Amino acid sequence: MSVLLDCYAALVPENGGLKCLKDAKIGIEGSIIDYVGTEMPEKKYDSVKNLRHAVVIPGLVNTHGHSAMVLLRGIGNDLPLMDWLHTVWPIEDRMTDREFETGMNLSILEALSSGTTSFTDMYMRAEQIAHTIEESGIKASLTRVMQNFDEGTDYWTYNRRYEAFDLFNRFNGAYDGRLKIDFSIHAEFTNTEGVLRDFASELRETEGARMHLHMSETKKEHEECLAKYGKTPAQWFRDIGVFDIPTIAAHCVWCSDGDLEILRDKGVTVAHNPESNLKLGSGIAPVPKMLEKGINVAIGTDGAASNNNLNMIEEMHVASILHNGYLHDPTVMKPEQVLRMATINGARAQGRDDTGSIETGKKADLAAVSLEAPHMHPDFNTMALLVYSAQASDVCMTMVDGRILYENGEFYTLDKEKVIYEAEESARSLFK
Amino acid sequence: MSVLLDCYAALVPENGGLKCLKDAKIGIEGSIIDYVGTEMPEKKYDSVKNLRHAVVIPGLVNTHGHSAMVLLRGIGNDLPLMDWLHTVWPIEDRMTDREFETGMNLSILEALSSGTTSFTDMYMRAEQIAHTIEESGIKASLTRVMQNFDEGTDYWTYNRRYEAFDLFNRFNGAYDGRLKIDFSIHAEFTNTEGVLRDFASELRETEGARMHLHMSETKKEHEECLAKYGKTPAQWFRDIGVFDIPTIAAHCVWCSDGDLEILRDKGVTVAHNPESNLKLGSGIAPVPKMLEKGINVAIGTDGAASNNNLNMIEEMHVASILHNGYLHDPTVMKPEQVLRMATINGARAQGRDDTGSIETGKKADLAAVSLEAPHMHPDFNTMALLVYSAQASDVCMTMVDGRILYENGEFYTLDKEKVIYEAEESARSLFK
Repeated sequence: MSVLLDCYAALVPENGGLKCLKDAKIGIEGSIIDYVGTEMPEKKYDSVKNLRHAVVIPGLVNTHGHSAMVLLRGIGNDLPLMDWLHTVWPIEDRMTDREFETGMNLSILEALSSGTTSFTDMYMRAEQIAHTIEESGIKASLTRVMQNFDEGTDYWTYNRRYEAFDLFNRFNGAYDGRLKIDFSIHAEFTNTEGVLRDFASELRETEGARMHLHMSETKKEHEECLAKYGKTPAQWFRDIGVFDIPTIAAHCVWCSDGDLEILRDKGVTVAHNPESNLKLGSGIAPVPKMLEKGINVAIGTDGAASNNNLNMIEEMHVASILHNGYLHDPTVMKPEQVLRMATINGARAQGRDDTGSIETGKKADLAAVSLEAPHMHPDFNTMALLVYSAQASDVCMTMVDGRILYENGEFYTLDKEKVIYEAEESARSLFK
Repeated sequence: MSVLLDCYAALVPENGGLKCLKDAKIGIEGSIIDYVGTEMPEKKYDSVKNLRHAVVIPGLVNTHGHSAMVLLRGIGNDLPLMDWLHTVWPIEDRMTDREFETGMNLSILEALSSGTTSFTDMYMRAEQIAHTIEESGIKASLTRVMQNFDEGTDYWTYNRRYEAFDLFNRFNGAYDGRLKIDFSIHAEFTNTEGVLRDFASELRETEGARMHLHMSETKKEHEECLAKYGKTPAQWFRDIGVFDIPTIAAHCVWCSDGDLEILRDKGVTVAHNPESNLKLGSGIAPVPKMLEKGINVAIGTDGAASNNNLNMIEEMHVASILHNGYLHDPTVMKPEQVLRMATINGARAQGRDDTGSIETGKKADLAAVSLEAPHMHPDFNTMALLVYSAQASDVCMTMVDGRILYENGEFYTLDKEKVIYEAEESARSLFK
């Protein structure tokens, strides 16, 4: 099956950046982009899809979340992080496989309808929910998040670690590579040093292992680590060898300049979650400085219980204006940078070299953003429209591996009404 | 004509705050709400409207904008305020009646489709565009914004002032009160003291006169006023008598504690424009402190050239999380406060005592927010859903004075395609 997308414009790579190619045609053969240009290609495609009203962008990559937490949307608002965690943890303890599954499906509806084609998730029961990734057609990097502070060393070592490697061995690369399995450490303050040192050492020997962790999200966490170890969380993770594994560090709100140099030197990706950091009162991450230092910064929504949605379009908008205001400098965040953060930087963070940009040879992971709504007129600057004016509802098509999964309100792989009904039922069951 | 709205819930006043009344019925006779309750009323209404999938909220009031600037959406991104103004001003100089009219119509499409029922606008050609308010059915407070720094005292006094009073006398209260005319001073730095002193004195004698101005938007503006007059802009406006007129002061990012006390004591409303202040690098207004001091804080989008949309749902979301993050305190902005800022506080700022809340005797200015999208499930806290999770596209109905103007993507008073076509044509004409 092949298709030619006939677009108003497409966001394509140019000189290490992005440019908006007007009147773009994108040819797709199976799951692969085999043509990008403004001329009609010589090749005959099975069909031509009219997207003359839309800008086609690389699918958005959400690099940090806790998907099934959509079931807790609206729980524990207006609480500081630790109080919020202590509100959420007992509820999570009541979650069974069923809740992880229904929550994951609801989160996938939300992701697909807002242009997300791939997400990195830090949560549990990955084995039990792997089938939601298979069935929905989306891409995901799942994990078994680990914390040993309330479990002791032995339990963690013999049980959680076994679980994590077993998951990795059985599911990493499943479904034509759409599913990846990461390793994950919840955070410094929820783990002990010796255990992590052994874990990191084992991971260094594991081909393809990747790491996903929380770091320096709150001032309290950052300072308590300094007081306890005489090191920042970034120094601590580096010293125990965790950063020798390709890592996504979520938040990094309180990182020092020295920490940022560690992140750059170790090739750690920062997952910037501006809405969650604002809502929980955690603070504002030094993103312009990170970009200046050459760190790979990507974007995440965090879980819906602290956001409270999984809308990457909104997250791009906030990322694009927040730092200007905080630093009193309107020049610090450019639309192009933010679009790269939400696409290619995210793909890189996930270890997916075959996606994240619109170019021949890459996977056709795409989102089409309609320019039809009143707020998308006039178009003097398409990249500015995408980050400053667009809304998730402007996403009119989401495609993964060349397959359309969402289009104009319709989901092709999920039964929207059923997913919502089951998620509502699951959410209610947590409070019976 | 009478109609009964049968709602999933409605946001109604309670003890000076708001509560979410589940299973609410709202009865409307002509333009007036004549029933609010959970029981079916005894009265027979001409029709019953099924809104069992939606929360009905008071129509959103956008208290600061420059509507026709939608034509400049995407112009002058990533520039500091003064550079941005100097980019925009020459373009505005080329705008004719036609551009003000087509721009206004485009902005009304955007407003209605995102739940805004009334807006306060600081711009020009109000006489030439009054008919857009008449025809569209929306409510607006228009003005002839005044600045004399490049015109001299005489021109201003004899021409602009005449224009402003003439406009007020002819149009204030037109179209059943839907159109109001404000007086407006662009800002301290674009006017001279003597002229404004006379102007304020004349306005104090003018019944029903209201004022709309920019104040302390940037640090530079605030500090230059201090250097020039030895007074902050708030002190300066107070001392020349401007605050003796009911005033909306937009931005107030750099107000000192003393300034806030002036605003409270003089009953000045602050129009908080978080997205514009962030995007232009102006800063973050001390909103939690304003609320604590008892100032009437409302919300505005500012013009689309510095936002870049007119989406009050998005503006509520940013207002609700920004201050938490900036102040490292997740408890400072509650959903209920933000919803009041965007509705009743805005209505009060406009001098519209007959709207802004859902209660019998008030005008039926309402927006219905659908709970059907994936991101609006589950509902553990409806007010949290409205400010943290909702998107403008969830607005499924906007009603002004009991008349439905927008519903499920359809505009009943404006021809969407024609408005967009004409606005695009106008925007292009500015760059010929």
